[in-house]
Amino acid sequence: MKQFTNAKQDMVTEAIDGTIAASGGTLTRLDGYPHIRVVVRTDWDKSKVALVSGGGSGHEPAHAGFVGEGMLTAAVCGDVFASPSVDAVLAAILAVTGPAGCLLIVKNYTGDRLNFGLAAERARAFGHKVSVVIVDDDIALPDLPQARGLAGALFVHKIAGAMAANGANLEACTIAATRVIASTRSIGLSLDTCSVPGSLKEDRIPPGMAELGLGIHGEAGVEQVASAGAVDAITKMTDKLSVDMPKTPHVVLINNLGGASCLEMAILTDSLLSSDFGQYIRLVVGPGTMMTALDMHGFSISLCELADGDEKFLKEAANVLAWPGCRSIEKPTILPLPDGLTPIRAPASAHAPTKAFLTHCCEVLIAAEGDLNLLDAKSGDGDTGSTLSGASRALIGAMDKLPLADHTQLYRAIGLELSQTMGGSSGVLLAIFFAAAGDASSSGQTMRDALISGLDRMRQIGGANPGDRTMVDALLPALEALSDGLPAAATAARKGAEYTASLTSAKAGRASYINAEQLEGHIDPGAEAVARLFEHLAN
Amino acid sequence: MKQFTNAKQDMVTEAIDGTIAASGGTLTRLDGYPHIRVVVRTDWDKSKVALVSGGGSGHEPAHAGFVGEGMLTAAVCGDVFASPSVDAVLAAILAVTGPAGCLLIVKNYTGDRLNFGLAAERARAFGHKVSVVIVDDDIALPDLPQARGLAGALFVHKIAGAMAANGANLEACTIAATRVIASTRSIGLSLDTCSVPGSLKEDRIPPGMAELGLGIHGEAGVEQVASAGAVDAITKMTDKLSVDMPKTPHVVLINNLGGASCLEMAILTDSLLSSDFGQYIRLVVGPGTMMTALDMHGFSISLCELADGDEKFLKEAANVLAWPGCRSIEKPTILPLPDGLTPIRAPASAHAPTKAFLTHCCEVLIAAEGDLNLLDAKSGDGDTGSTLSGASRALIGAMDKLPLADHTQLYRAIGLELSQTMGGSSGVLLAIFFAAAGDASSSGQTMRDALISGLDRMRQIGGANPGDRTMVDALLPALEALSDGLPAAATAARKGAEYTASLTSAKAGRASYINAEQLEGHIDPGAEAVARLFEHLAN
Repeated sequence: MKQFTNAKQDMVTEAIDGTIAASGGTLTRLDGYPHIRVVVRTDWDKSKVALVSGGGSGHEPAHAGFVGEGMLTAAVCGDVFASPSVDAVLAAILAVTGPAGCLLIVKNYTGDRLNFGLAAERARAFGHKVSVVIVDDDIALPDLPQARGLAGALFVHKIAGAMAANGANLEACTIAATRVIASTRSIGLSLDTCSVPGSLKEDRIPPGMAELGLGIHGEAGVEQVASAGAVDAITKMTDKLSVDMPKTPHVVLINNLGGASCLEMAILTDSLLSSDFGQYIRLVVGPGTMMTALDMHGFSISLCELADGDEKFLKEAANVLAWPGCRSIEKPTILPLPDGLTPIRAPASAHAPTKAFLTHCCEVLIAAEGDLNLLDAKSGDGDTGSTLSGASRALIGAMDKLPLADHTQLYRAIGLELSQTMGGSSGVLLAIFFAAAGDASSSGQTMRDALISGLDRMRQIGGANPGDRTMVDALLPALEALSDGLPAAATAARKGAEYTASLTSAKAGRASYINAEQLEGHIDPGAEAVARLFEHLAN
Repeated sequence: MKQFTNAKQDMVTEAIDGTIAASGGTLTRLDGYPHIRVVVRTDWDKSKVALVSGGGSGHEPAHAGFVGEGMLTAAVCGDVFASPSVDAVLAAILAVTGPAGCLLIVKNYTGDRLNFGLAAERARAFGHKVSVVIVDDDIALPDLPQARGLAGALFVHKIAGAMAANGANLEACTIAATRVIASTRSIGLSLDTCSVPGSLKEDRIPPGMAELGLGIHGEAGVEQVASAGAVDAITKMTDKLSVDMPKTPHVVLINNLGGASCLEMAILTDSLLSSDFGQYIRLVVGPGTMMTALDMHGFSISLCELADGDEKFLKEAANVLAWPGCRSIEKPTILPLPDGLTPIRAPASAHAPTKAFLTHCCEVLIAAEGDLNLLDAKSGDGDTGSTLSGASRALIGAMDKLPLADHTQLYRAIGLELSQTMGGSSGVLLAIFFAAAGDASSSGQTMRDALISGLDRMRQIGGANPGDRTMVDALLPALEALSDGLPAAATAARKGAEYTASLTSAKAGRASYINAEQLEGHIDPGAEAVARLFEHLAN
């Protein structure tokens, strides 16, 4: 099964139950399963105008995700892409409507109009005040008198919902909803069709093409157009949206039809807001996944001309699961880069014994190049010797630029040098080792303790513990033994290095990909390098 | 192009710019494009512990979507699925860190560890207090010491972020972050790989299979398993998650990896929360799209054992774009269905003239069946005559159950009868017509005015205006002329019906799909039915 569903007939009720269970107690439903699927907010006392919407399922998070204080009072859920029944709509109206009446917000599809319309009549026969508004925001076919209802319906839910929450009466809510509908225009574009559960996916859109002017039920778009990226998609859509559009401030809703990635949605948002068209956009809702066609790899743009008061209603908090908020477009103040990205180099200073010591260490590693490469060829990619000798040569070359007379600064300077000249993970790890040792040294620790501090930090970042078959197995015992002198440290390092030959499972670094037989009997090259270093220093 | 992107090298900066532009002024960035891409909250005064996270891009809305008060202070964005550089991380730390220090939250990937780790050392060299925590919540490979960091990182961002916002010091934040990491376990499952922009999509998972135990970079899962729907997916994951899991209250985060539909995510949520495993879940974050692998058609479950205080920190509001909130699991109280779904039937009453009148009307329509079907065959599906005659026969059969002596109730009763016996849209529309007329009649309107009110309501729901080539073209002029008597109404109806033969573009109903040549010269069958009715009544 290429989808995360269970039995087809349970899809809608399971989705509703999942949504309610994760709503934190804000949503519940009417006891009408399987045919009457109505999601209701739990904190409703019928004291204000109720808002009821809904339609086919498959548009999640619409409509249950918009039920709650400040938006819808109830959502009626049909089967996937099919209108709910008259009885289901009527149940919703009767369950939530009090003396203030009910506003039915219906998207312009024949089934929805008829079922919501007749349910409204039935509810009126009970004496309820019921208004019906039909949302027809699609501009894909400008000559079609029956334009479809798309994500622009959310402007109606939000503005009329906020008005109702603020105590507006049914007439005022209806007038505002009607005005918002008249001021709203939407268009969709998609690179692929959607996967209707239980049906084969239609392979309608050839590579390199997109469909422009599509609805939210997987139906074909008005035209197939070449697809040339985000800016191109936005241009094609705003060309349509700007026809007869008043050049006044608008709110835009950027809606993922289900299958576009968040990366793409953010890029599309940039392409839209930074286009010429962006000058007419004062407020933005999204980008977000609000009114989907299941997993359709597309998006829609809805625009509503702002009237007085809309901004307040759009921005007011709503206690619903899926409204992403409405925000002002503001030009950000880009912050300057901080000082300090160019590393501070301590001034060079001469100190012959230190220079000799460091040079000796480097020469030991250069001399070991071939042996270490051979060892690494058993357990890794055979470059440990080359990496260490290359870094050693670079360090020798940089010796006269180092603060040799200031040992505290010297650690950091070596770390910086290694981070810039030594490739791969080991360069970064040794840089961390020396930098952290410098830190510890500057806070007054002895050389041994500073080096152990450096090793601790390197182990945290590198993730290597004793026994993981890395240089740590030689370096840690050597440093621990250093208080007993260099010969003791060298003995400990050698013992640790030999121990790595008995470890048949590397747990960090590249050797962790090598199997036991290949590792057995071979010393880890990093540990060997450490042992050789200490052995030469002890002599 | 099968994706909404522009030039590949601009993807990340464009996505950041789009996110910032739509953030309502809460986010900005450092001036380091193209290499240093750091998103920063605008309201930051360095008075508290800073939280910095990030990593490769392609995980949107992570991490910029979690920058803001109560979560991250800054997010460092690498290329798609690639770690940001040391310099980029360092720039973020230096830009936001004050005396309270900085907590670096790093997901456990070698590149991220090394670059964040070295940046931390560099920042420490400036005297900054910097802690690093490594998130390794993946349990797919229990024996791997280097477990990957997945969406469980969000628990760290939220809990440590809320603590920092409440004034906790760096040590307390670090201890809490470390404890949360140790208490968190995640696993992912996907039905498909992801589409990396600019690369061919790997076709790795055969139909009917899923990958269990996957990361967030499109890498293969630990095992391929049979895919048998939502409950099956949840069972496979909770089997892994429950190994060694303390049987104590947990918070769960249900994360869309990018390409699952919201319908599927809601079903999965139900499958999880209603499973036996659900007993260990006290709080839920999502379902939502939080830490994605571009458009991967999969999801992940992250669990964190709750300690004292976590619930408060998880539930506190955060001023970020993408945190969906954390809610308690509560068993909803299902509401009973409202009374009134079974329509109230007015008591039957006898009234011979009314019965004769209605029967006559019905007989006219029955007699016209063949003619109307023929007309409809020109412009629709040829069933108008059958539909009307069938409803007429049913009405005659129901005549003795109608409230014939109570004309106000009679309208509604006829409407109810038609809605139950007459198929298709026309049955619903006529039911609305009669129900609304009954409404108007009960509020004291004359028969003519009541019928016009009914027509208004029917037109609103049906969407048909005069000139749209429907029955409205005959019925509206007939009702308007009715004040001059039935003969005048009949003349007007006939004139209106003939007018429809001149209309070559139907704008409502099925005839709107028919082209002009086929329509010309043929009267609309609904309008013809109205004309015949009035003509017979006038005689």
